[in-house]
Amino acid sequence: MNMNIDTLFIELNKSDPLPLYEQIYNQIRADIIQGKLQVGMKLPSKRQLGNFLNVSQTTVESAYGQLAAEGFIVSIPRRGFFVQAIEELSYVQPTQLIATPLRTPKEKIEIDFSPGHIDTDHFPFKNWRKHAKDIIDESSKELLLLGDPHGDLELREEIAQYLYHSRGVDCTPEQIIIGSGTEQLLPLIIRILGKKTTFAIEDPGYPLTHYVFSHHERKAIPIPVDKKGMDIHTLQETNADVTYVTPSHQFPTGAVLSAPRRIALLNWASEKDHRFIIEDDYDSEFRYTGRPIPALYGMDQGQNVIYISTFSKSLMPSLRIAYTVLPNALLQRYQDAFIHYVSTVPRLDQHVLARFMKAGDFSKHLNRMRTIYKRKLHVLLSTLARYKPVISYSGEETGMHITLSIETGETEEQLVQKASAAGIHLYSLNSYRTSKKANNRSFIIGFGGIREEDIPKSIHRLMKAWKIPQKN
Amino acid sequence: MNMNIDTLFIELNKSDPLPLYEQIYNQIRADIIQGKLQVGMKLPSKRQLGNFLNVSQTTVESAYGQLAAEGFIVSIPRRGFFVQAIEELSYVQPTQLIATPLRTPKEKIEIDFSPGHIDTDHFPFKNWRKHAKDIIDESSKELLLLGDPHGDLELREEIAQYLYHSRGVDCTPEQIIIGSGTEQLLPLIIRILGKKTTFAIEDPGYPLTHYVFSHHERKAIPIPVDKKGMDIHTLQETNADVTYVTPSHQFPTGAVLSAPRRIALLNWASEKDHRFIIEDDYDSEFRYTGRPIPALYGMDQGQNVIYISTFSKSLMPSLRIAYTVLPNALLQRYQDAFIHYVSTVPRLDQHVLARFMKAGDFSKHLNRMRTIYKRKLHVLLSTLARYKPVISYSGEETGMHITLSIETGETEEQLVQKASAAGIHLYSLNSYRTSKKANNRSFIIGFGGIREEDIPKSIHRLMKAWKIPQKN
Repeated sequence: MNMNIDTLFIELNKSDPLPLYEQIYNQIRADIIQGKLQVGMKLPSKRQLGNFLNVSQTTVESAYGQLAAEGFIVSIPRRGFFVQAIEELSYVQPTQLIATPLRTPKEKIEIDFSPGHIDTDHFPFKNWRKHAKDIIDESSKELLLLGDPHGDLELREEIAQYLYHSRGVDCTPEQIIIGSGTEQLLPLIIRILGKKTTFAIEDPGYPLTHYVFSHHERKAIPIPVDKKGMDIHTLQETNADVTYVTPSHQFPTGAVLSAPRRIALLNWASEKDHRFIIEDDYDSEFRYTGRPIPALYGMDQGQNVIYISTFSKSLMPSLRIAYTVLPNALLQRYQDAFIHYVSTVPRLDQHVLARFMKAGDFSKHLNRMRTIYKRKLHVLLSTLARYKPVISYSGEETGMHITLSIETGETEEQLVQKASAAGIHLYSLNSYRTSKKANNRSFIIGFGGIREEDIPKSIHRLMKAWKIPQKN
Repeated sequence: MNMNIDTLFIELNKSDPLPLYEQIYNQIRADIIQGKLQVGMKLPSKRQLGNFLNVSQTTVESAYGQLAAEGFIVSIPRRGFFVQAIEELSYVQPTQLIATPLRTPKEKIEIDFSPGHIDTDHFPFKNWRKHAKDIIDESSKELLLLGDPHGDLELREEIAQYLYHSRGVDCTPEQIIIGSGTEQLLPLIIRILGKKTTFAIEDPGYPLTHYVFSHHERKAIPIPVDKKGMDIHTLQETNADVTYVTPSHQFPTGAVLSAPRRIALLNWASEKDHRFIIEDDYDSEFRYTGRPIPALYGMDQGQNVIYISTFSKSLMPSLRIAYTVLPNALLQRYQDAFIHYVSTVPRLDQHVLARFMKAGDFSKHLNRMRTIYKRKLHVLLSTLARYKPVISYSGEETGMHITLSIETGETEEQLVQKASAAGIHLYSLNSYRTSKKANNRSFIIGFGGIREEDIPKSIHRLMKAWKIPQKN
């Protein structure tokens, strides 16, 4: 069936910025979709349509070429172009893009005691920028391509050195896997441990970890935590195969796992095959009294500890670089399971960090920040001391948060609301619990992200909101 | 039980770089672990031990403090320090760190036709570095903290603009989720689609996608692909709920999903509730003939298309930035499921990319690269033309790879081996198949990562290895 050329209602607008061939393409395409041009119909030849529309044959050729590429028409050699069989579907014209700003006005939080915040005033932007400038260079063009799925060797070597000297973790770069955060590495670890693994987790504990286990449909038994860390006796009575633990500074209580419990935990792991401990050492860089407590990994004879840590506290949460050290028993299993895996960590960032560490800038930064956080902690504790004994605290040996407890007749909820009314965002210890809520009124006070000079007034404001009087 | 101070064999070495308190700590700790000091034993007072060892009381205090912090000893007020009950476990001294270089000598690949490689010679390092320098600055210290779990608004706005103008995808920034790659975003999508979802995938197809489905224990039905893309008739006969498809440039065959099939696919999705299409638009930026084919997403009335794309081809694979556009029907579900999710994409990188796009550098880069790849493709095809009709090719309209087919008596394996002996790494189409292998001898020829001037000699070398003669 040949088409009468007059039935093609093509209107060309030469002042339209859209090229003529696209105007032709658009209109024929719409006619085909709307069924105005029937299947099998022969389109006018390029010459005919060109003459009819007063455009060049090349313009028509481009339009037909595009229609053919998308399958709306087909070219049969020496016969011409024919409309193809397509089902009906009206093409939706894009409506005006609605790019309304997303930012909803934040709740009026003036003081945020989030344990996830760090000090941003003393980040070594200058050094970081220098290494970034050096790396983003013609000479690193190889780094544009994908790298080692375990993370680039340069960074793994630096991390191995750091772990050996600072955390008593003696591993080879081969054992290290670099990832985009604990939440991204944990699923990989979960997968190599097998489907039937039962996990034990700290209660209260780090909520993201708990979500990872439940998202992966893994059983996770909550184990109570007291001032000496996880209760290993309770653990021993469960059928858990793998224990997730934060021994250096339990999150959120701040407890340090005691030496007897460390040893009991390691013994628990070595008693049976396929038992493992996942040691999350998330903020152990900052210990304020004495020598850093060595990682469980370093005490482990049986190689049952999977070590995991992050640069979120020591550098910045938004860097998204964490790492795990796998015991040799799991390394081969990991390689087999993730043979097609691609690292999620940008390579340029890996190399900026590796140079930052190699140049000694990381250890300088840690030492500097340790002093800064120690000063903040000192100011926090001496401010809090003025409200004793109504309030008490614990977990002040390491990291960037402490636990604050209040002896008062008010409920936790009332306390949170009163703080909120005063513009203070608080995190209750109970919000980190998976099992039943405890009756005491305890809150996490993250001090990392609050300026030293703002700490006293923030605490005074909180105490005023709670009507807790200062000692004279 | 008091301890006879003489039974404490503590040797101090004042020329040791280890502080004295650590030497004391180490030795007492070892004695406790090895059972030489029994549980309940009272340690000498600080004064006694200080006098005995000829060190200050403060030194002893530091050692005891550390031992107490780790739970090896306990301080009972007015009575002294006592050895705690711990189980036996010999502490493993770190052995010398073995930091042997990991790099195994690469197989002697001289020419790599990997479809994953890009041109690294023309990356705009200068512009990228400029934006990085501007972002890594004191004034962006807010960017050190965690950002929006969906990705920062600045980048989502740029992506929405880009998609609207370049891909006919009309979405709001709210619909966009930024992630660390298709392999990282796909599990999130899989999760919101529910456990019982059956997927349909292209066969041959992108292996990483297939691994993601199988790792998540989701059923994935392979659907054959021909020159017009996925066979929608076969799809219609399955009980699949969600189809994963690469319509703009099927991976690996290079086929463009024809318009009739596009419409049939969209109709398939709208026929039943909870049917969705995952459109992976991984390399559609580079189309060499005519106008880019609009994304399926733009043709979709029923909002059943989940759009997914990446900057791996358009910028660099190692950047690890991809994004998905969720239909409104799924957006709420996503927010509910991932309320505690943290973005895996470094924020500084997000902002460097956003500025790169906003400044117009991205579209400049795309235009430049399109010309470069088009020239490479032209050289590749005209070189291959000299070996017709023994060889033929397809999939040359878009992207950075074509499919090469050979008419020869040799098996695919023989062809791969001969190429390998000549230092050429080849990827057979069959290696991307999930179901039975096809009988034809087809290979993916990625040309993105090969220099224009190296293309002819690489092809000549391959043909020589295969003993395919040139036409005169």
